[in-house]
Amino acid sequence: MLEPTISLDYGSGGKKTAALIEEMIVPLFKNDALCALGDGAVLSGAEKIVFSTDSFVIRPIFFPGGDIGKLAVCGTVNDIAMAGGEPKYLSLSLIIEEGLPTKELQAVLENAARTAKKANVQIVTGDTKVVEKGGCDKLMINTTGIGFLRHPGLHPSAIRPGDRVIVSGTIGDHGAAVMLAREPLLLQGDLKSDCAPLHEMAAALYALGPALRVLRDPTRGGAATTLNEFTEAGSFGILLAEEAIPVAPAVRTSCEILGLDPLYCANEGKLLAVVSAEKAQEALTMLKRFPEGKDAAVIGEATEENPGRVILRTEFGGTRILSKLSGAQLPRIC
Amino acid sequence: MLEPTISLDYGSGGKKTAALIEEMIVPLFKNDALCALGDGAVLSGAEKIVFSTDSFVIRPIFFPGGDIGKLAVCGTVNDIAMAGGEPKYLSLSLIIEEGLPTKELQAVLENAARTAKKANVQIVTGDTKVVEKGGCDKLMINTTGIGFLRHPGLHPSAIRPGDRVIVSGTIGDHGAAVMLAREPLLLQGDLKSDCAPLHEMAAALYALGPALRVLRDPTRGGAATTLNEFTEAGSFGILLAEEAIPVAPAVRTSCEILGLDPLYCANEGKLLAVVSAEKAQEALTMLKRFPEGKDAAVIGEATEENPGRVILRTEFGGTRILSKLSGAQLPRIC
Repeated sequence: MLEPTISLDYGSGGKKTAALIEEMIVPLFKNDALCALGDGAVLSGAEKIVFSTDSFVIRPIFFPGGDIGKLAVCGTVNDIAMAGGEPKYLSLSLIIEEGLPTKELQAVLENAARTAKKANVQIVTGDTKVVEKGGCDKLMINTTGIGFLRHPGLHPSAIRPGDRVIVSGTIGDHGAAVMLAREPLLLQGDLKSDCAPLHEMAAALYALGPALRVLRDPTRGGAATTLNEFTEAGSFGILLAEEAIPVAPAVRTSCEILGLDPLYCANEGKLLAVVSAEKAQEALTMLKRFPEGKDAAVIGEATEENPGRVILRTEFGGTRILSKLSGAQLPRIC
Repeated sequence: MLEPTISLDYGSGGKKTAALIEEMIVPLFKNDALCALGDGAVLSGAEKIVFSTDSFVIRPIFFPGGDIGKLAVCGTVNDIAMAGGEPKYLSLSLIIEEGLPTKELQAVLENAARTAKKANVQIVTGDTKVVEKGGCDKLMINTTGIGFLRHPGLHPSAIRPGDRVIVSGTIGDHGAAVMLAREPLLLQGDLKSDCAPLHEMAAALYALGPALRVLRDPTRGGAATTLNEFTEAGSFGILLAEEAIPVAPAVRTSCEILGLDPLYCANEGKLLAVVSAEKAQEALTMLKRFPEGKDAAVIGEATEENPGRVILRTEFGGTRILSKLSGAQLPRIC
C-alpha cells in the first residue's frame, strides 16, 4: 500500500521503489516488454531492439572519478549491455537550473562526449530545458538508449541452483565516493567512483551462450538489492560468502565512518553475472582480462535452500539475511 | 558567444537555445543524425528508426486541457510523427520531489496511460528518481520514443518557393492557457491547452508523398520560431498573411491581457506543414476531416524574396519581420 505522499524512500532503488513501480506504474502501462521489468526493454522490430532510460540527479554533479555527464552515458550504456544489447544510440536531455556556470555545463558535456566515444555510442538527439533558480538543483540529465539485441534470454528466471554468482570487481566504490564527496570535513583520499562503461565485459560474457543466465549492474540499492531481485524471479536462494566479496580498503573504511554497508552502496562500473557452475571459471578468466575486471570474483551461488532469499555467510561462520534496501540509504547517488 | 552563466533565456526554444545547441552541444556530439537537428533522429538499423526525447518541466503540472503526464506522451509522440515516424514505444522517466501527493502522481500517470493508448504507443521502460524537497519542482518527466520511419525525407531544405504553409488549427492555445493558469486573479474562461497527439493527422499527410516537404509541431517558441527554423534551411523566405492565421478569440484576448503574441506562444496539438502549391488544397481537406483539424488553414507561402526571413503581412496591409523568439517569453511552458 503506497503512502499518501512520496518520500525520499520511494527513490531508493529498494523496497519502496519496487512498490511504486509494481503498485502504480506497471498496472497502468501493462505490456509484455514493461512487465519483464529489466533495466531495458526488448522490442520487436525487424531487428530486436533493447531500449532503456535513466534520469540522473546525482549531487554533487562533479565527484571523484566522474561527473553527471560521464555517469549519464555509462548508466544507460550499462543498462543496455546488461539486457543483452549492443549499445548504439543515445538521446541526451538536459534540465538546467538558471545560473549554472556555462563552463560547468561544458565540462559535463565534454565528459559525456568522451565517454560516448569510449562506449562506441552516438548521441543522436536531445532536448534542453532551463528552469528558474530553485526549480531544480543545478543540472539533471536523462539519457535513453537504443541497442541491438545480441544475447537474448538474459533473465533471473533462468538461474538454477548450483549456478555461480560473479562480480566483476570491488563493490560500493561509487556510493562511498559520492557520499564522502558530500562531507567537507572528511578527506577523499584515493576513493573514486568506479563509473565506467561495461559493454565490452558484457559482450565478452555473451560468448558463454545460455550458460550466462543474467547480467545486472548493481546501481542504486547496491549488490544486495540486485541479488534480491534475482531471487524474486524463481524458486531458488542465493548464498554469498562474505570473505569472497571484493571491497576496496578505502571503501571499507569510509563505509565504517559513514555507517554504510558496501553491499547496499551503488556501483556504476561493476556487473553481477550468474553463470552455470561449469562455465564459472571461464567467465572469471574472461573478466580478469579487462583491467577493470582484475578483482572479479565468484562471491556465491544459487541454492535450493532459502528460496527467495539472499543469505550472507559471514567471515565468522554465521549467516544473516540480506534483504532489499529499505528506505533511502543514499539519496541522489545517481 | 555563450554567456558565462546559463539564464532562463537559454531554455526559451528561441535564439539562445539555438546558440547553446549549435555552439556547445553539436560540436561535442557531432554525427549525421544529430546534425540534421530535427525533433527526432532517423537511425539506420534493419528498419529505419525515428528516435526522439523531451523532458517536461511544465508549471503547474495540472492545467486546463491536460497535465504533465498527457503532455509528456503527446510531446514525444508528436516529435516522432513530425519526423515521419509511426510512434511505437516510449520510455517514461520520473523525477519526483519528495512530498508530492501520491494521488497527484497517480492522476498524472493515469493520464499518461490513457494518452498512450489513444496514440497507440506502448510505454515499455522507465525510471523513477525522488529528490529531496527543493531538489526539483514537484514532478518532471522525460519521455523518449521510438517509431518506425514511414515517410522519409521530411526536412525544411525540401521547401521550394511557391509551396504553401498550412497550420492544422488555432495557434497559441497551450501557451496562453498555461500562462493564464498561473495568474490566480484572472478567470480561465474556456481557454484550454490544445495538448493532443498528432500522429493520425501526420499519417494522413504522408499520403501526399514528396509534395509534403516538412512537418513540425510549433511548441516552445511558437509558430514564428518554427517557421524561422524552416527558412534557415534553404534560400527562401516565408510570407504569412495575418488574417489567415487562426487564433481562438479567448487566446487573442488573453494574449492581449498578458502581453503575449500568439505567434510566439507554444502549441502542443498543432502541426505546421509545408506542401507543394498543387497539393495544398488536398492537404487542407485531409486535415479538416479530423475534429482537431477543423480550423486548418493555409497561412502563407514560401517565397524567393527575403531568403532566410519570415515576413508577416498584417491585416492593415503593412509587413513586419517575425524573428525567432529571443529570451524566455514563457518559461516552463512544456
